[in-house]
Amino acid sequence: MRAVTISDGQLVVTERTDPRPSAGEVLVRVRAAGLNGADLHQLRGRYPAPAGVPADIPGLELAGEVVERGPAAHRFAVGDAVMGILGGGGQAELAVAHERVLMTVPPLLSWAEAGGTAEVFTTAHDALFTQAGLVAGERLLVHGAAGGVGTAAVQIARAAGARVTATVRNPRLRDQVQALGAEVVAPEGFDEHGPFDVVLELVGAPNLAQDLEAIDLNGRIVVIGIGAGATTEINLARLLNKRGRLMASTLRSRPLEQKALTARAVERSVLPALASGQVTVPVAETFDLAQAPAAYERFAAGGKLGKIVLTTD
Amino acid sequence: MRAVTISDGQLVVTERTDPRPSAGEVLVRVRAAGLNGADLHQLRGRYPAPAGVPADIPGLELAGEVVERGPAAHRFAVGDAVMGILGGGGQAELAVAHERVLMTVPPLLSWAEAGGTAEVFTTAHDALFTQAGLVAGERLLVHGAAGGVGTAAVQIARAAGARVTATVRNPRLRDQVQALGAEVVAPEGFDEHGPFDVVLELVGAPNLAQDLEAIDLNGRIVVIGIGAGATTEINLARLLNKRGRLMASTLRSRPLEQKALTARAVERSVLPALASGQVTVPVAETFDLAQAPAAYERFAAGGKLGKIVLTTD
Repeated sequence: MRAVTISDGQLVVTERTDPRPSAGEVLVRVRAAGLNGADLHQLRGRYPAPAGVPADIPGLELAGEVVERGPAAHRFAVGDAVMGILGGGGQAELAVAHERVLMTVPPLLSWAEAGGTAEVFTTAHDALFTQAGLVAGERLLVHGAAGGVGTAAVQIARAAGARVTATVRNPRLRDQVQALGAEVVAPEGFDEHGPFDVVLELVGAPNLAQDLEAIDLNGRIVVIGIGAGATTEINLARLLNKRGRLMASTLRSRPLEQKALTARAVERSVLPALASGQVTVPVAETFDLAQAPAAYERFAAGGKLGKIVLTTD
Repeated sequence: MRAVTISDGQLVVTERTDPRPSAGEVLVRVRAAGLNGADLHQLRGRYPAPAGVPADIPGLELAGEVVERGPAAHRFAVGDAVMGILGGGGQAELAVAHERVLMTVPPLLSWAEAGGTAEVFTTAHDALFTQAGLVAGERLLVHGAAGGVGTAAVQIARAAGARVTATVRNPRLRDQVQALGAEVVAPEGFDEHGPFDVVLELVGAPNLAQDLEAIDLNGRIVVIGIGAGATTEINLARLLNKRGRLMASTLRSRPLEQKALTARAVERSVLPALASGQVTVPVAETFDLAQAPAAYERFAAGGKLGKIVLTTD
């Protein structure tokens, strides 16, 4: 099979041995595989792949068809269209995934959309609902709302009855994020638009002091992205007076059972909205697998709405 | 009635008009009322009393006998021995409290012990179980374990099957905290004794960086005390990699319904252990209400195990 491979800090598309499904796993003929921030970190040598996945093939999500079932795998039949998150190895023509982390592709989605769904919707759903406990009527602020996780978060929060405010750095993208259901405000002085019950922090530490000012009593700040910086000062007296919570999370390093639980949560709460068209998967641009270096450059450049996705057709 | 009163930043014991119970409230003849850190902050002008309580009579907890029921109050009879938390006004011969925040005094407790029970056990139980979700088998670190909240936390965590490590500044008190069920370690280098699932931070911001190093995956840090400082640097990448949570809370400013819920939780989970003697209320020293200034001095000096309590007999 052909696979995107990291070799000496460079991306190359090379021929690799086909992987084989172990017990409970299926082999997927990959149709589309989205890019995520973690892929860039891995390329730059700052985010090694966890044990048990190809160390040098990036790709945390895929969509495609089941071509072979490993021993004891029974959830899907050969030919089924599936999508899901992976610890790595998704950016290739073939990949193995445990059947418990895979989901059926909803009918309305193109391969490119399906290949850009799992990682960002799972991340957004886990952060907003499982971690922060967002409920209908609450006010949510999403920082960095034009990206993959941001566009997912805005939509599923709206679909769950939350009131959503968003910051978007690139002025050209603000109308599009607004069209997804958020009130878009300027990144400067965002705390004047609160108070918020939940803040989804996809930008980083520089926002934290204002996030603390912007939350309401019992407010929750969930940190998922720290691209703009990891370290800052925190005033615990503010957190105490607000009875607030600061939480941070990643998906990739979680064990199988936790990833499977997130897949069940997305099946229950997100797939119906994707199937009805209430929630969409914005894809900024697709690239053929062979053009992976160009796709990574486009991803790193930012200023896009939604996902960059590699396709194999 | 006589009451401890804050007047121009000074404590005096003066004659005040007796309070009257409103709907749902009872009038309590106070037998004992514990001192808490918040009383000191209030005396120093840094923690004004919330609306609806006497602005100048400190006292966040009491134990005593019901002497009168307000309209619609029916949980207790005149003469019943009760204890509970208050928004203020407990350090007096008489105080009113809503019947929903009061609890029956367990048989084994003296008045002094009962008067020092509600605030610290409610705070500790809420922080460890309601906020941090501590469960049997988990490892807990309590910073500042010799104080009122600390001694309560060590005991109820042990009673719930957690493994408890504690830091205690004063070397003279370490054996006594050890006797309550904690492994006592030196405050310096405490993070080498982890990893911990939950850290109860009763000291303040200077510990935070090491707390982050000391927690395990999915660890929770609950900040209740910030006497040693409120502001520090935080590395969100550490929190993210550990999928950790930082939470902070106070009891005093919560609305009636939330305080009532904490009372129900303490009735369910703490009173049985107090009634059986499995959990005790360490009282360092009692002072007559008239000696309140001396009691506050003793409290501020620190270096004590458990509570300083005012009594009215």
